[in-house]
Amino acid sequence: MTSRAYIRDGAEIYRRSFSIIRAEADLSGFSGTAERVVVRMIHACGMTDLPKDVELSPDFADAAEAALKRGAPILCDAKMVANGITRTRLPAENDVICTLDDQRVPDLARQHGNTRSAAALELWRERLDGALVVVGNAPTALFHLLDMLDAGAPKPAAVIGIPVGFIGAAESKEALAQDRRVPYLVVHGRRGGSAMAAAAVNALANPVE
Amino acid sequence: MTSRAYIRDGAEIYRRSFSIIRAEADLSGFSGTAERVVVRMIHACGMTDLPKDVELSPDFADAAEAALKRGAPILCDAKMVANGITRTRLPAENDVICTLDDQRVPDLARQHGNTRSAAALELWRERLDGALVVVGNAPTALFHLLDMLDAGAPKPAAVIGIPVGFIGAAESKEALAQDRRVPYLVVHGRRGGSAMAAAAVNALANPVE
Repeated sequence: MTSRAYIRDGAEIYRRSFSIIRAEADLSGFSGTAERVVVRMIHACGMTDLPKDVELSPDFADAAEAALKRGAPILCDAKMVANGITRTRLPAENDVICTLDDQRVPDLARQHGNTRSAAALELWRERLDGALVVVGNAPTALFHLLDMLDAGAPKPAAVIGIPVGFIGAAESKEALAQDRRVPYLVVHGRRGGSAMAAAAVNALANPVE
Repeated sequence: MTSRAYIRDGAEIYRRSFSIIRAEADLSGFSGTAERVVVRMIHACGMTDLPKDVELSPDFADAAEAALKRGAPILCDAKMVANGITRTRLPAENDVICTLDDQRVPDLARQHGNTRSAAALELWRERLDGALVVVGNAPTALFHLLDMLDAGAPKPAAVIGIPVGFIGAAESKEALAQDRRVPYLVVHGRRGGSAMAAAAVNALANPVE
């Protein structure tokens, strides 16, 4: 019925994709869960040179996996991140939360003199303790998280900090990596984004590739 | 109240980001709406070398802008694409449609022997005529769109074809660019994704940066 020749089997597409990634990418700096996370992030962006910019703290993979297994909520800075997380992969029907559209956010943003993305984190406070935080879009959200921790906010179990862009992205990820209060995963430089961030969560949530 | 120095004004962040992009990226191959689209795609991915892989048909920008202005629906292959489209930028409260979660899709996928992403396009048929199609995730969706056109499906006004990845992504975008039946925008190679695809729509929808 169709004339074009292409692979139509989703599982086979995944298998071949992951095989190409492992053949081409230099994954020597990563093992176990961390390797799986980096492979899936590469899968999400199509770039096998990503590993050179990826940095995880030694405790990140265990902390993030354990948090998900015990049912920690996943706090996302952007709806695209939340939407990219495959619910059926989550080990404990974890809540996936994005507060950006909460009606209190515009007022909070004015009050804090910050972006809506940063202000939305103020509504995370009661879920922050032991949570998995995922920043896949806004550098201001990642900076504000660090400011909240400075001010005594509860500590998340781990932070995926992969905002993308030209203003503050590289600096906010550098700040997270140097902070050392929480286990972290970053992609240094300008690259990042919601797809990579969601991919990292999907890899942490479930070993199935 | 906070100790870190970073830009907290969203409008200023946009201004400076777009200014850096225009200073660094080689945009000589693009003008008018097309230039605006490419700049916003770069903004979404953080990579100023993107233009070398971007190809638009000469009729793409006008066709896509006109379609949006006359209220054409925006048909998206992935929820992340749909979610990345800023509704307030749309000129005619255009419907943003993603049929991937429709309960008929798993059966259609079995029936067509294809991925769910491709099968979901079968549910676009009655909205396809004159629509803006946005494929930001699945190469199989873009291939299947071309197969549907071969089989006589109504023609969309324009197609944004930016699937990402290692299996079929480059080939499906090449096939769209060589097809010539519909105005197109592609990013050649493996790069692409929902953020870039949504950014292209957001630029086409509204000239405000």
